Amino acid sequence: MRGTLIHAPRDIRFGDRPDPKIVEPTDAVVRIAATCVCGTDLWPYRGANPITEPAPIGHEYVGHVEAVGSEVANLRPGQFVIGSFFASDNTCPICHAGYQTSCPNRQVMTGCQSEYVRVPLADGTLVATPDEPDAAMIPDLLTLSDVMGTGWYAAVAADVKPGMTVAVVGDGAVGLCAVLAARELGAAQVIAMSRHTPRQKLAIEFGAADIVTERGDEGVERVKELTDGLGADAVLECVGTDESMHQAVRSARPGGNVSFVGVPHGVNLPITELFYSHLGLRGGPAPVRAFLPELIDRVWHGTISPGKVFDLTLPLDQVAEGYRAMDERRAIKVLLQP
Amino acid sequence: MRGTLIHAPRDIRFGDRPDPKIVEPTDAVVRIAATCVCGTDLWPYRGANPITEPAPIGHEYVGHVEAVGSEVANLRPGQFVIGSFFASDNTCPICHAGYQTSCPNRQVMTGCQSEYVRVPLADGTLVATPDEPDAAMIPDLLTLSDVMGTGWYAAVAADVKPGMTVAVVGDGAVGLCAVLAARELGAAQVIAMSRHTPRQKLAIEFGAADIVTERGDEGVERVKELTDGLGADAVLECVGTDESMHQAVRSARPGGNVSFVGVPHGVNLPITELFYSHLGLRGGPAPVRAFLPELIDRVWHGTISPGKVFDLTLPLDQVAEGYRAMDERRAIKVLLQP
Repeated sequence: MRGTLIHAPRDIRFGDRPDPKIVEPTDAVVRIAATCVCGTDLWPYRGANPITEPAPIGHEYVGHVEAVGSEVANLRPGQFVIGSFFASDNTCPICHAGYQTSCPNRQVMTGCQSEYVRVPLADGTLVATPDEPDAAMIPDLLTLSDVMGTGWYAAVAADVKPGMTVAVVGDGAVGLCAVLAARELGAAQVIAMSRHTPRQKLAIEFGAADIVTERGDEGVERVKELTDGLGADAVLECVGTDESMHQAVRSARPGGNVSFVGVPHGVNLPITELFYSHLGLRGGPAPVRAFLPELIDRVWHGTISPGKVFDLTLPLDQVAEGYRAMDERRAIKVLLQP
Repeated sequence: MRGTLIHAPRDIRFGDRPDPKIVEPTDAVVRIAATCVCGTDLWPYRGANPITEPAPIGHEYVGHVEAVGSEVANLRPGQFVIGSFFASDNTCPICHAGYQTSCPNRQVMTGCQSEYVRVPLADGTLVATPDEPDAAMIPDLLTLSDVMGTGWYAAVAADVKPGMTVAVVGDGAVGLCAVLAARELGAAQVIAMSRHTPRQKLAIEFGAADIVTERGDEGVERVKELTDGLGADAVLECVGTDESMHQAVRSARPGGNVSFVGVPHGVNLPITELFYSHLGLRGGPAPVRAFLPELIDRVWHGTISPGKVFDLTLPLDQVAEGYRAMDERRAIKVLLQP
């Protein structure tokens, strides 16, 4: 098959790779229908993580089951499936509690920017759509593999409830999906912090009532002005930097909630501020698997269209251009078609 | 009147002080029936906070209303009342959300280790008992002013629900009250981390099923052994040091909750560990006021007897000996009688 390797920062190559095979009897092999480039992929692309040897990359995928191992009970070849960026057994107490990305048997998915991918723990990891989806629905379904599930988790982890005021820090695809999630969960007012016109427009389309372009002290002041001087009931931090985390903590009302769903890079949590403001905090790699049935249902019935975050579609063999477009913020999110 | 001043670390003096008076029309003056020494008082006593001049000290109190200002509507002289260590208006949105210790109008209470004390925002701060309590009930009621309310908040902030496994880090009076609170809120199993025999006994009397004497890695392992290898659903951190916070974070199951109710001293939150374990975190100075009606009711009907944390009672003029007994861990908690 053909697939993507990252050789070094800013060195993405597409070429021949070994065909994935069933290794464990609980595996499936999926023929990728669509994959994409994630904000998380930009960390190694920009040199934030060491790359010691050429490595497969990509962790978002939808596609058709090509083959299943002998112990896979709930999937059959030909089904259209969506999986998360962590494989998980979905049978242990941690999975049952809804934290599949903390499953003791979890396995990191990678190499999804390829024509085929091996998915471990297939019964636990993959969820099939009710039927073969229309081509137009594939971008929506693809977001459920990560960004929409992560935005949803951001809202769930900050305990967004009907009537709440919600601020979203970060206008990447996850932040935009978090706006949509907060509205779907009943937020009365969603404030999107964004400086980029196309992203502001999409935030408004996804249900944001207010756009805050300021950052730092001024950004905090603007959020407070928009929330009766108190700060937002829930703040969804969708970046992962120290600056964005402090922005989030300071924008929440006393006793409010802050969620954080971007992998933390150099974040120092202000413990004294957290203590005296009674903030609730929960983060983590989103347990996307927990939300797949519900989110597939919402996409299937046309309730949400998170696929609008894709503003550039390329053939998979142009994956390197996809990374460049994301890195240079020419695209919010790039969909890749094998 | 006579009252307590802290002059310097380990220098507690009892002597003549000005009589508290009504200053604002929303004030009350309370004649103290009982007060006590708090773990928090030991921080300045041990030199952790600078003391620039002799300062009144003590923030826990029950007693009789002596006088009220012209705008106090809900209290009358002679009533037996309990207040929190923060005065709060109890009318703003933050108070209504149950975070009275983040009230924008909050005022820190101090000088309660005295014969009388001025209480600002009396209508918002003080809660009267249904009638004059028996003398035997006064220790129980006194704990509601801080330690029992703080233990209760520890359990509430960690979202303790019926059937949960709960671990409590810290065997001071707050930790012991947290054991009692977790049981009252329906925890199926409470694990108390304690090395001191009298405290272990009280923890068991308050409902702990297991005592863990180990700390560090061994303590974490013991908690996991007692919770099917997963860690506790909720961990209540009742100390405030870096060591105890890390103990708490590592003792919780993935996706569990950690509360922290001791003022943090030198705590560095492990952000990456919090992220990858999906822990929920909430702390803060306990909004004791929120719990007073419910806790007074439980004490009044004999459901709980948190006053058992007092294992030494002294006349108020021996307050300095009370501090010594607490500092040397000869007493769990010292009650002082004017």
